[in-house]
Amino acid sequence: MIKALDQNQSRELLRRERIGRLGCISEGVPYVVPVNYVFDGECACLHSLPGQKIEAMRSEPRVCLQVDEIEDELNWKSVLAYGIYEEITNQHERAEALNHLLARFSRLTPVESFIAVDATAPAPIVFRIRINRITGICEGGER
Amino acid sequence: MIKALDQNQSRELLRRERIGRLGCISEGVPYVVPVNYVFDGECACLHSLPGQKIEAMRSEPRVCLQVDEIEDELNWKSVLAYGIYEEITNQHERAEALNHLLARFSRLTPVESFIAVDATAPAPIVFRIRINRITGICEGGER
Repeated sequence: MIKALDQNQSRELLRRERIGRLGCISEGVPYVVPVNYVFDGECACLHSLPGQKIEAMRSEPRVCLQVDEIEDELNWKSVLAYGIYEEITNQHERAEALNHLLARFSRLTPVESFIAVDATAPAPIVFRIRINRITGICEGGER
Repeated sequence: MIKALDQNQSRELLRRERIGRLGCISEGVPYVVPVNYVFDGECACLHSLPGQKIEAMRSEPRVCLQVDEIEDELNWKSVLAYGIYEEITNQHERAEALNHLLARFSRLTPVESFIAVDATAPAPIVFRIRINRITGICEGGER
C-alpha cells in the first residue's frame, strides 16, 4: 500500500539525506541528474560546474529535487521538493553556502581547492532551490 | 574529473540496474519519481498505478529515465536515457511486459495478484519508454 508522508516526515528525510536527483527542463524535455545537497529547512543548497543543468535552470527556474530511501521494491520512501532555482552570486553568501556544503561533503574540498589554484578551470556555480512545496509517499514498513 | 561514458558502458549500466528515476513534466514543471524498470536494449519497461506520473506522460510523452551507481561524492556513474512514453494496452503485449517485469521483480507479484482478485482496485498501467538517446557521465575509478 502506498501512503502519503506528512510534512514533518518529508522534511526529516530531506534533512538526513545527502544525495538527491535534481529535475529540470532542458530544451523542453525533462533532465535529471544526481546531486549532493544540504537542506536547511527552507532551501536546498547545491553547487555544480557550468553545463547543461545550469543552462536549463537559468532558462526555466522551476525545478524539483527528488530524494528517496529505498530498501527494496516494497519498502521505500520518496520525497519531491518543488522550488525555484536561485544562483548565489554575492561573494559573502556564496562563501557561506560553499562552507555549508563543504562541511557536509568534506571530500569535495579538494575540488574547490584545485579550482582555486587553476585559473583556467571554470568556477563552480553555487545555487539554492527555494522550496515552495513538498510531497512525500512511502510503501512498506518504517525503517 | 568528470568523464563521458560511451554508449556501451551506458547501456550496460541500464541493463544491470533495476531502479531508476523517471523524469517527466507535470503541468509545466519537472516531476521525478523512483521506478523499477527492465531495459531490453530498445525500451525500458515499467508499470505503475494510475496517478500523476501517468497523467503527466500521457500529456507530454517526452520523458527520461536516469539511472546511477553512486559509491560516494567522488566515485559515481549516471546515465540519462531519453525516450517516448508508450502505453501498452494490447492484452497480449501487456501480459508479456508484465511477465518480463515480474521475472525481474518477483516480490511485486503479490501486488498484481492482489489487484487481480480485488475488482475495486485500479488496474496497473503497463508502459514502455522507447529510448532514442542515451548519455552517460562518471567520476572517479571503475567499480
